[in-house]
Amino acid sequence: MTAYDTNNVFAKILRGEMPATKVYEDDATLAFMDIMPRADGHTLVIPKTPARNLFDIEPGVLGGLIQRVQKIAVAAKAGMAADGVSIQQFNEQAGGQVVFHIHFHVLPRWSGVALRPPGMMGDKAAIEANAARIRAALK
Amino acid sequence: MTAYDTNNVFAKILRGEMPATKVYEDDATLAFMDIMPRADGHTLVIPKTPARNLFDIEPGVLGGLIQRVQKIAVAAKAGMAADGVSIQQFNEQAGGQVVFHIHFHVLPRWSGVALRPPGMMGDKAAIEANAARIRAALK
Repeated sequence: MTAYDTNNVFAKILRGEMPATKVYEDDATLAFMDIMPRADGHTLVIPKTPARNLFDIEPGVLGGLIQRVQKIAVAAKAGMAADGVSIQQFNEQAGGQVVFHIHFHVLPRWSGVALRPPGMMGDKAAIEANAARIRAALK
Repeated sequence: MTAYDTNNVFAKILRGEMPATKVYEDDATLAFMDIMPRADGHTLVIPKTPARNLFDIEPGVLGGLIQRVQKIAVAAKAGMAADGVSIQQFNEQAGGQVVFHIHFHVLPRWSGVALRPPGMMGDKAAIEANAARIRAALK
């Protein structure tokens, strides 16, 4: 088992050492916008406790985390007026993982609209506007 | 909210009205091989209680379900000697959902090997052999 790297980008966001456009936070969870959105409203949901991925996260933490993913998915669908939502969660590099703090991708989807390719920086103002729509739907 | 359709394929599998290559079962959960595998060892994990998707599943059921997904992901990685695992979960047609009983896809992944396109029937003997490897890793 590879050890958790405390200097990964999401650990830095959790420590306040890097900025993020947050949409939801509680004692156990943080949700914020992906800066390379593959869909409008693309949100990431992470636990505050360190875990590399599905292979080392404590099952109790994972159980709570997916309930927050559900909450964000419901709000993202409503706030973004989406037709559906895709959830992705990648483990290890071969599994598609880029940042090694476990995270769930919440991707609002619309009929006939494909996901954008990965790795493309999003427009900052558009990301902020989408975050505001999801935050409003969470209230 | 669209109502749960009791005649979806996974409901029929749960009732024993359709066959499936099972790898794991407990009081709350069934895991079985996808007949159109996008990766070798592609497994589906579903709750035994009816739920269409993330928008109607009871949070407590979802929390237990993801812990079974974790268990299957660990076994699939080990049994298939994979480098990583991708998890996908689709909600509503626009979100990629085809069968309307909530399910998590567990996809073993290897460095440099892309997922196969969706909708291609797999080889039955290969699927059975992969199921045996995952079952063995669960023991």
